[in-house]
Parts: sequence; structure tokens; C-alpha cells
Amino acid sequence: MNQFGKRFTFMTFGESHGKAIGCIVDGVPAGMAIDEAFIQAELDRRRPGQNKYTTQRKEEDRVEILSGVFEGVSTGTPIAMVIYNTNQKSGDYSAIKDIFRPGHADFGYFHKYGLRDYRGGGRSSARETAARVAAGAIAKMLCQEVGIKFMSGVVQVGGSRATQIDFAFAQKSEIFALDASLEEHQKSLIDEARKNHDSIGGAALVRIQNAPIGLGEPLYYRLDAALADAMMGINAVKGVEIGEGTRASTLHGSQNNDAIAPEGFATNHAGGILGGISNGEAIDIYVYFKPTPSIFIEQQTINTDHEATTCKLEGRHDPFVAARGSVVAESMAALVIADMLLLNMGRTLKGVKNYYGN
Amino acid sequence: MNQFGKRFTFMTFGESHGKAIGCIVDGVPAGMAIDEAFIQAELDRRRPGQNKYTTQRKEEDRVEILSGVFEGVSTGTPIAMVIYNTNQKSGDYSAIKDIFRPGHADFGYFHKYGLRDYRGGGRSSARETAARVAAGAIAKMLCQEVGIKFMSGVVQVGGSRATQIDFAFAQKSEIFALDASLEEHQKSLIDEARKNHDSIGGAALVRIQNAPIGLGEPLYYRLDAALADAMMGINAVKGVEIGEGTRASTLHGSQNNDAIAPEGFATNHAGGILGGISNGEAIDIYVYFKPTPSIFIEQQTINTDHEATTCKLEGRHDPFVAARGSVVAESMAALVIADMLLLNMGRTLKGVKNYYGN
Amino acid sequence: MNQFGKRFTFMTFGESHGKAIGCIVDGVPAGMAIDEAFIQAELDRRRPGQNKYTTQRKEEDRVEILSGVFEGVSTGTPIAMVIYNTNQKSGDYSAIKDIFRPGHADFGYFHKYGLRDYRGGGRSSARETAARVAAGAIAKMLCQEVGIKFMSGVVQVGGSRATQIDFAFAQKSEIFALDASLEEHQKSLIDEARKNHDSIGGAALVRIQNAPIGLGEPLYYRLDAALADAMMGINAVKGVEIGEGTRASTLHGSQNNDAIAPEGFATNHAGGILGGISNGEAIDIYVYFKPTPSIFIEQQTINTDHEATTCKLEGRHDPFVAARGSVVAESMAALVIADMLLLNMGRTLKGVKNYYGN
Amino acid sequence: MNQFGKRFTFMTFGESHGKAIGCIVDGVPAGMAIDEAFIQAELDRRRPGQNKYTTQRKEEDRVEILSGVFEGVSTGTPIAMVIYNTNQKSGDYSAIKDIFRPGHADFGYFHKYGLRDYRGGGRSSARETAARVAAGAIAKMLCQEVGIKFMSGVVQVGGSRATQIDFAFAQKSEIFALDASLEEHQKSLIDEARKNHDSIGGAALVRIQNAPIGLGEPLYYRLDAALADAMMGINAVKGVEIGEGTRASTLHGSQNNDAIAPEGFATNHAGGILGGISNGEAIDIYVYFKPTPSIFIEQQTINTDHEATTCKLEGRHDPFVAARGSVVAESMAALVIADMLLLNMGRTLKGVKNYYGN
Repeated sequence: MNQFGKRFTFMTFGESHGKAIGCIVDGVPAGMAIDEAFIQAELDRRRPGQNKYTTQRKEEDRVEILSGVFEGVSTGTPIAMVIYNTNQKSGDYSAIKDIFRPGHADFGYFHKYGLRDYRGGGRSSARETAARVAAGAIAKMLCQEVGIKFMSGVVQVGGSRATQIDFAFAQKSEIFALDASLEEHQKSLIDEARKNHDSIGGAALVRIQNAPIGLGEPLYYRLDAALADAMMGINAVKGVEIGEGTRASTLHGSQNNDAIAPEGFATNHAGGILGGISNGEAIDIYVYFKPTPSIFIEQQTINTDHEATTCKLEGRHDPFVAARGSVVAESMAALVIADMLLLNMGRTLKGVKNYYGN
Repeated sequence: MNQFGKRFTFMTFGESHGKAIGCIVDGVPAGMAIDEAFIQAELDRRRPGQNKYTTQRKEEDRVEILSGVFEGVSTGTPIAMVIYNTNQKSGDYSAIKDIFRPGHADFGYFHKYGLRDYRGGGRSSARETAARVAAGAIAKMLCQEVGIKFMSGVVQVGGSRATQIDFAFAQKSEIFALDASLEEHQKSLIDEARKNHDSIGGAALVRIQNAPIGLGEPLYYRLDAALADAMMGINAVKGVEIGEGTRASTLHGSQNNDAIAPEGFATNHAGGILGGISNGEAIDIYVYFKPTPSIFIEQQTINTDHEATTCKLEGRHDPFVAARGSVVAESMAALVIADMLLLNMGRTLKGVKNYYGN
Repeated sequence: MNQFGKRFTFMTFGESHGKAIGCIVDGVPAGMAIDEAFIQAELDRRRPGQNKYTTQRKEEDRVEILSGVFEGVSTGTPIAMVIYNTNQKSGDYSAIKDIFRPGHADFGYFHKYGLRDYRGGGRSSARETAARVAAGAIAKMLCQEVGIKFMSGVVQVGGSRATQIDFAFAQKSEIFALDASLEEHQKSLIDEARKNHDSIGGAALVRIQNAPIGLGEPLYYRLDAALADAMMGINAVKGVEIGEGTRASTLHGSQNNDAIAPEGFATNHAGGILGGISNGEAIDIYVYFKPTPSIFIEQQTINTDHEATTCKLEGRHDPFVAARGSVVAESMAALVIADMLLLNMGRTLKGVKNYYGN
Repeated sequence: MNQFGKRFTFMTFGESHGKAIGCIVDGVPAGMAIDEAFIQAELDRRRPGQNKYTTQRKEEDRVEILSGVFEGVSTGTPIAMVIYNTNQKSGDYSAIKDIFRPGHADFGYFHKYGLRDYRGGGRSSARETAARVAAGAIAKMLCQEVGIKFMSGVVQVGGSRATQIDFAFAQKSEIFALDASLEEHQKSLIDEARKNHDSIGGAALVRIQNAPIGLGEPLYYRLDAALADAMMGINAVKGVEIGEGTRASTLHGSQNNDAIAPEGFATNHAGGILGGISNGEAIDIYVYFKPTPSIFIEQQTINTDHEATTCKLEGRHDPFVAARGSVVAESMAALVIADMLLLNMGRTLKGVKNYYGN
């Protein structure tokens, strides 16, 4: 079950320490200019090893398009992209070969499949998200053509929550902080966790601007549900909110309802989605990441023979995943919206007749 | 897009004020005793009109099985169920025929489809969730056969959050309160909202006990993602958490990681899911409901001609939806787990060979 | 797995002798006038019991729409239709309760599911095809809106093959014969089989006129493959051809290639489909039905205890299924085309941009 | 829509003259030994350029596994395979850049997508079938584990139809002829077509031995329908039959019904499938290929400006595709059966309970 989407879809493959990771993006309309440099730029935003606030693992993440593009434009056939793994060192992982790392996926993979690829998390590694970002870049190109924009940033580091949202600032921030006034403090929280050989959780905000009214396929491919699916499926995510989110549960209807005026909604508690359908306002999605489970502190665990033992990880360290995660979340949002754009076509007889020129 | 699931699936139909609502449940293994009384009992738990804390609309919700069951057991063919609408009064809705109710789905439906069924919300009405509960009852019967249990209750009313979790108490509570010590206070919050012609938000907790290790299909039908999809798609839900949820974002890895011992996990911050796969612990899902948008206070809105107007709803009133919503959430959880159980079969060659008796 | 289609889909339910059969049609564009009388008329074309050339079983086949239509037009929500079984007599089937009828599905159902609904074939009965015809009628309404027409008839009875194709004549013929000059002979072949308590095979031709160029989704939802799937899945079908079909295998390329001229293709050996995509010519599908296995002659078989026995069926008799089958095949063709019409939208960026008005 | 299957699935990518073709196979049970040499051997069977009866194009078809296999066994994660195109010469195709070749897919692609990759057929080239064969090799490994065998051969060349079926002989025959007594004649028919710069049609027979009773998911993923879908979707296929196929339409029920005895079916007119479900007998599928449209004779056509012109192809020539096509058909059969094997698991409550060890 390695495919996402219904009409504009992508399927990923690859393990952290296998030969390559990659994806096939299907359903891309023909005739769209494919900007390979943009795909690479998106991958570079997600790439670790750029500063001390993230993992020092150096991934090349050089993307290559294998199909679906001819003379610079999409042909309507599947676009396959591959990123060869150039930096894997399987030898590093012998120490954890037979133990389950607390908070990691390896316990589940081993019990489900009867074996596991223990090299750096194998398929469950966050490395796979590079393939999502590559696919998301194609989705963004499509969305861009109808004027839809995506932005994201870090809204929370540990207990420090942004009160100012500045997406432009986030793009310049080393930790993609949305609140300039909190950036230094948030950096210090990450740095402190790092020095303690620990990690710290955080949250991202993804905003979608200019989505047309009407996206979302009720009742079982609603826009909010599809976004929740997309976000909760990202490594380390444990909570997802749309608009007011969990906070809406503390309010009265008279507070939470958004009044409607001819020029638009007066407020946006709904986060741009009502009844699972976009309402034309900004779509706000909050994505909550747990602290990365890879910490360099001794922990109690068991081995694959079911015996008690301890583990103390070594190697490269990623004290804070929400920054890189915000780029992945933004990509997933674009993939959902691209799918919804195509699914939305033909929802009325008038639309069908206009399309077929009758 | 009115179907949910991949292997154990259901598809629903019907509008609030049409002739009937119902569903087709497909993928039910043959040879399972189908207890029609249990299905009805589940519907009765969800049914409104039972006390002053919920809507006074009297729905009969009498379910009838049309197919797929022969001599009391499932045959492996689709199980269709229908609930005829016996209490619809279309005349009640003339006042809102041409306006958009703030916080409702009708704005989106009208813009998406170019028309809308304005009678009581039409397809977007919470009435459709009765079909989910009927389907969920079948899912529960399957899960029960392998020992999996589902429970739920209200964990929060407005700002009042449970600190004690007692699922047995919730079943007896008129508002499905999980914390006996808070029930009276929580009732008073709902009653106050009702008297003010307002509504109040809340949250449900769904717990899945005894799920086998290994449920969830990485990477794009992970158990957590499928549950998030299922929950966010319920009417009025704006936030979903697994285990520690949004709170995990405030923690350090050393706090959030669950140590592993031969007898199981020492803690359950993960909420029973790691890397999108169940780990054998209790699966905890928190579901946050906004206050129901139908309030009897005058609100600013526009009509279908895009002119400013006001709306003041009348009729039956549902000041608090999280109680009924908790039953729907529990049903959706069962539907996800039933699907994952079937998908999980054949994940190893050994499993396939054992099944085929070689 | 009781659903067909990807975008314009239908799911059926029901057994021959259960309470009801029916379907849910999903993906119908909103704003389409739904002509309930047309649906009924289509069902009447398929209905048995109309003359001596088909089964004398009297089925009422009275269709009722339960949802998805408001004030006479589709709303974009699922259209559920139900046909209650009013003529079932389970008592008739006690004689075959424990034996497998040669040529029937009951052998497979019993071994697959460990039990079977022995009443008149249960789910495997051709009665289920009434639900396909009801769904197909909705599909035809959509296709009609963009000018696509469907026609069908019987092209072969036993060894008697039409050399003249007259769809208008077929509509008047009791056996839907396409070749007026052969009708009497073909009737006599059926009548002879009937008198011998035997049955006879046959074939239908379905033609789709005015399909736009470009329908079909390469490479795994090609138009020809989807039609083959749809047709081979009809009860008693054992062979499917597109255009020249099996005959193309006997030709040289210089004979089979259709020359192209500015005004269209010079010939239509391809049957309107090249490379899985419609080419604007008439789409011709030949569907071959085996003789119905229900014959009133003693046959060797086994019982459910795996013991040799004989069976001699009694009751209503259907000596020739290809006539009724042609209506089902025509309906399935419409369902495929409706799906392809919607899937085809958005295949180019230009189409997407035009749709979204940019 | 470049994916096939529901549980054991594959998705292909790539164009004839792009960088690479390949596939992702998903749903492979973990713990299965993956024999890379067998995959290569299967590709070599399909590979052109081996003798004068097929195209002289030399394709390397060297397959590389990128993911999903660890220490020689499947891990349950997607298996990506890539075959780099090493022999493409885009320069060869300038002559056909602006014309539509009669009988080819390029007319449809151009009209559907507004452009086309004219290099050697692009996506519509039979070259893509190498990816199917690679995926099919994985499917065969799974089927082999439960004792299912696949075999195939050429049953017809032009009007010369085999009366003897010898699969062992076919494996040694340069044209995969099933009837040893006809091989020389059939070769001469192909050679004659080749010398005439023409092509000739043919048919393949695929036989599946030892499939368990019960494969096939009624009613819309029946085994016969899925096979028809799989076969009709292969390049150049225009007809598909199961068992007696089109011939069944000429028979009486008393001739076509297969009597059942305790030791099995007395005959196999059904071709191993009744009611869409396998019955334990050999599954016979006949696949009819049109003559390849690429002939070196001048033909009437139009260009992309819609003007009349002629085309006379040059280059490598494939006078007969049914031989290579039989290997592709056999691979597709394996892919269908692998999918059905997994889907069939959990069709009874007993199966589910046994699997989960309760």
C-alpha cells in the first residue's frame, strides 16, 4: 500500500540504505512544463545536514527523471523519479541489528513481516520523504497553474508556540520559524536538547492560499480527511488539526462559527474547510511532530529474542524533525490538492458539457 | 467518493430528508453469525432524542438487512442495509432554503455542485452517520471474533477535560462522560449552552484493546493515517490525535519514548502505534468536535444570490455533538481495524503458505 | 469486490431470492435530469418472461430511487436504487440444495465461502444484472448529454451468424436479432433447443456511436481492456472481441490496418480503439455467451458430500440468454464510457486551466 | 492509470526511447526468496532480436532491483525494478514525427494529450511489456510457492491453428509453436509475411495449472473478467477467450456443460472458471493478436496538420508479435493469479481466525 491519491497519484519505493529511493507520479496532465530545477530546489529545502539544528547526515538527494517528460513538458504518462543513495553505510548499524529502538518503527516491521531491514530504519526511515517532496514538486507545478500557493513553517518548538505567523520569515530561518520574535528562543530549545543528547517535539503550520471553492469529495474523500490522512502518515506525526482544531472543542458555536459576508468569511476558525469542502478561505493545517525517537541516552528495550537489554544509539543526530517535516507536510498538502483539483472536474453536468465542447 | 476501506469496505447513500439512508458493506468473511439485534443496539446508542443533552429530533433508525446474510450468517456477498427516513418534514426548511448557515456544509455543496438539497443538510447531515454505525457493527462482529474490543466516551466538554478514564461509567452516563467526577459539571456546561441557544464543543476518546501487533499497511495506508482519515471525516471533527498527540510536540524524546520490556511497553505515549503499525498496546485516538454550528442566535450570512442577510435557525437543537459523535468514532475505528485485519493477511510467505495448506 | 469503475462507479448488492437487489451509483455529475421512466424502460428491455424465447420467470423489476436525486435532478451524491424481489419462492430449490449443477457457479461459491445461498443461484444469478441495467441507464443519460449513443443486438444464435447488422430491427425483434433475414431461422434454433429441454449459445454486438477521440486511460485502464473486463464479467460470457477480434489474428497487417484520411478512417477493423484509446470511429464489441447451463436433461454431478449423483432440473427455463444478455452488455458499455468520460477530463493542462477559468 | 491489481499490484513507467522503463511491484509477501536470475531469464524469453521471426531490434533488457529485497528475500516493501534503455536512437524517428501510422496508438495519444512522444511509439510501445514480464516473474515466484504453474505458447499463426498442444515443445520452438506438426508451416507463413514487408496475426494459449478452487472475487473482480482485462490490455490484442470461448456460443448446453464426478470435472469446456471463480481444472486463456501494424508497405494516412499523406516505415521489423506476446500474456496471468491468491485470504471467518491463531 505504497500509493497515495486517486487521480493525481504517486507511489514511492526504496529504503534508507538500499540502492535508491524514488517515486512514480501518475495522472499528471499533459502539456505542463516540468521544471527539474524546481524539483531539486524543493528537495534541497528538505535535505538534512544543513545546520546544527538538524541531522548531520549528508544526503545528496540528486533527483533524476526517468520517464513521462518529453522535450521539457509532461506527456500524460507516468513520471518516474529516482534518487540514488550515495551515502549509505550499512556497517554503522550492526549495533542495533538485533534490538528494537524505543519509539521506532522497527518493532512493528519485525513483527509484521517476520524480518526487517535494520539499516537506518529501512523503509520506515524519514529518508523516504524525499520521494514525497519530489512528487509534491510536480503537484505544486500543477496547482501553480491555477493560482494555488503553498507555504509552511514551524509554529511550535517544544512548549514555545508562535503568536505571529510570518511565512516569508520562515523561509529564511534556519529552523523555518514562523515567529521571528521567538526564533532565538526556539533555537536555544533545540540546541539544549541536542547538547543533552535528547530531542524535542514541535509543530508545523501549512497554509494553502487561493484554493478554489469546492475541493473535496464528500463523504469519504473529504478534503479535511484526506489532509489528515496525508499528514498523520508523515514520520513522527501524532496530531493533526484543521483551522481552530482541538481548540474548537473548547468553544461555543457562537464563537466558532464564521460569519459570512458578500466579500467572504469574516473569520476563519474553520481553516478554509466546511463539511469537508474548501470554502475559498486560506486552508490551515497544523501538524504535530513527536520528538524524534533517536536519542543518544541509554534506554530500556528488548532484542529480537525477546530478552531485556539496553540501547544507546550513536552516529548522526536529528534533535528536531518538525523543520524538515514542515517541507514534507507542505508537499503532501500539494499532492492532496492536485488530486482534488482533478477529481473536482466533472462534478456538474455543465462542467462535463463545457469540457466536451457541446 | 462515498466508499471507505480497501478490503473490508462500506459505501453509504442517502440524505437527511430523502427516502432512506443506508450502506453496502463488502468484504465481510463468509460464515460469520450476523446479530441484527446488535446492529440495532449500536444504532440506538447513536440515536438522538434520548435526553436533553442532545437533539430532540426523533429518528426511528430501524435498520433492515437486504442482502448478504443467509440463514443468519454472512455469505461473503455484499451486506446491504437500509434505514428508511420516517420523520422527515421538508416543510420545516423553507426558511433556510436560500441562505447559507454559518459553519455548515451547505456553502460548499452549493458552490461545488451548483445546487443543494437544503432539507436538513441533505447529504452533509450527521444523519448519514447512522449508516456508518450500522456498518461499524458488522466490523465489530468480525473484530470480536479475534478478540479485539472497542470502547469510547467523552473526554472533554468545552474546557472541562477528563483526568480519570472510566469506559464502563461512560456507557451509563447520559453524556457518555469518561470522568465520573466531572460528569455533573460537564452536563451543566451543555445545559448552559442549550439555555443560551448556543452549542459547545467537546472531544471523544476511542480505545482499541487487544489489536494484534502488525496492523497497518506502510507507507500510505498506515494505521494512524487511516484512523486520522476516518475520524477527520466525521461531521464537526477538526482535530485528531494518536496517543500523546499534540502533547507529544511539547516533550523531549527521553520523555516521549516508551521503554520496551519483555512483558510489553512500559508506557504508552505512542498510543499503540509506531511507524504506522500497531504495537500491541491499547490504541488511543482522541477526536475533537467543534461546537455544532446550528445555534438559535442571529448570525450574519449571505443568501444564494450573494446578498448579505441574517439567519436565525429554529427547530430541534443539538447543543453538544461529541457524545453521539463518540459512537460514530468508535464505529469508524472498528471499520478501520476490520479492514486492516484482512489486509494484514498474507503479509508473509509463511502466512500465505499456511493459509493454502502447503 | 462488488464495485465497478473508478470515477463514475456502481456497486451492486442482492441475491436472486433475498429481499431485494439494487445498486449505488456514485460519481454522477450534479444537475443532470434523472428520468426514472427511462430507467424502468431499460429494466423492462432486460426483463425475462416476455416471450417463449426466454425464461418464463416473471420478475417485477420495479425500481425505486432512494437517494441522490432532488427535485428531479442529480445532486452529485450517490444514487441508490432498489428493486424488491416479489416473486421469489425458496421452496422451489430444495431439490438442488445439496448438489452442484453442472456449468453453474454454485460449485465455486461453495468451495470459496464454505457455504452457499442455493436459492436460485443466490448472488451468482443473472437476476443481479437488473442492477447493472439500472446503473447503466444513469450512465446512458450522462453519455447522451455529450452525444454518445449505444445500440446492441444478437449477432449469432448457435452457428447462425448475422451478415446484415440492423440495430433498428433488433429493437423490434423478440430475440433482438440484428439480421432480419435470419431471425426466423434463429428463432427456430432457440425453439428447438427449448423443446429438447436444452439451451443454445449466442453472441451480442454492442456498438457505441459518437464517442469522442481520446477515451481510455493507458496503460492499465485502456478502453479495450475495461470493456473486456466489463463484458467477460457478465454471466455466461466466455469470449470478447473488439472490432475484427479473433478474426484479426488470421489477417496480414496490410489487410487489417485501417488507412487514415482527413475525413476519418477508411475502414474500421480496429473497432474504434487503437492502443487502448478511442479513435472516433464506431466502437464495436462482440460478446459471446455460452448456452445457459440450466437444462432439463439428466446430468452427472456430485453433491456437497462429494458423492456422485445426477441432477435433473425443473421449473422455469431460459433456452437462450444472449438476447437479454445483449441489454446487459449495452448497459456495461455505457458504464465504462461514462467512467472514461470523467477520467478523461483534465488529461491536459489546457483542459484543467479552462475548467478552472484561468 | 498505470497500475494493475488490487493487493498484489504493479505500476509501470517508461517510454520506448526514454531513459528507462521499469515497475514497482507492491504487496509482495515478506520472506520470499527473490531469484534475480529468474527475472532476467523471463525477460530474455520476451526479448526481441533472437531470430528472424521477430524484430531485429536488440534490446539489452538488463533488469536491476532497486528496493524491497534485503539479503535475498522480499521484505514486504515495494520492489522497484529498472531497465535502462541502452539502444534507443531517437534520430531514426524523424520521418514519422508528424504522421500517424495506420494501426498505431499515436493517433489516440496525440488527440488525447495534445502532443505525443513520437520516438518508437513512446509509452505505447511494446517495449513497456518488459516491465510486465519483470513484475510477472515476481508473481510467478509467489504462485510457485503454492504449487501453481504457468505455461504458454503460440496456438495460431494466421489461419493455421494448432490441434495438438505441447507446451514443452513450445519452449524449444523459435516461434513458441504449440503444435510440432505445424511449426514448419507456421514459420513459413511468418517468413512469407516478412519477405512481403508485411506482418501476420496469431494467437497464444496460456494455461494455469494447479490453481486452487475459489480464486476470483465476485461480482466485479471475477477471475475471468480480470484475466480478460489483463489480456485485452496487451499491445495488439483484439480478442480473449476462456475455455471454449467464442466456440461455446455455437453449442448446446448439453454439449458445453462439464459433468462433475467425485474425481473432478469430466471435461473442461469451462476453461477452469465457473461463475468467475476457479473450479480446480486447468485455466485456459486464448489471446488473439492482430498483425503488427508496422509494415514496410506504403499506406494512406494523415499528418498532424490533418492533411492526407502516405507513410512507408523503415527500420527494424517485427512480422509476428504473438510469440513474444505469449510470454507477456503468461506474465499477466501470473500477476492476476498472485493478486487473487492474496485477495482470497480471509474470505471465510474460519480462515481469518486460523490466520490470527485464535
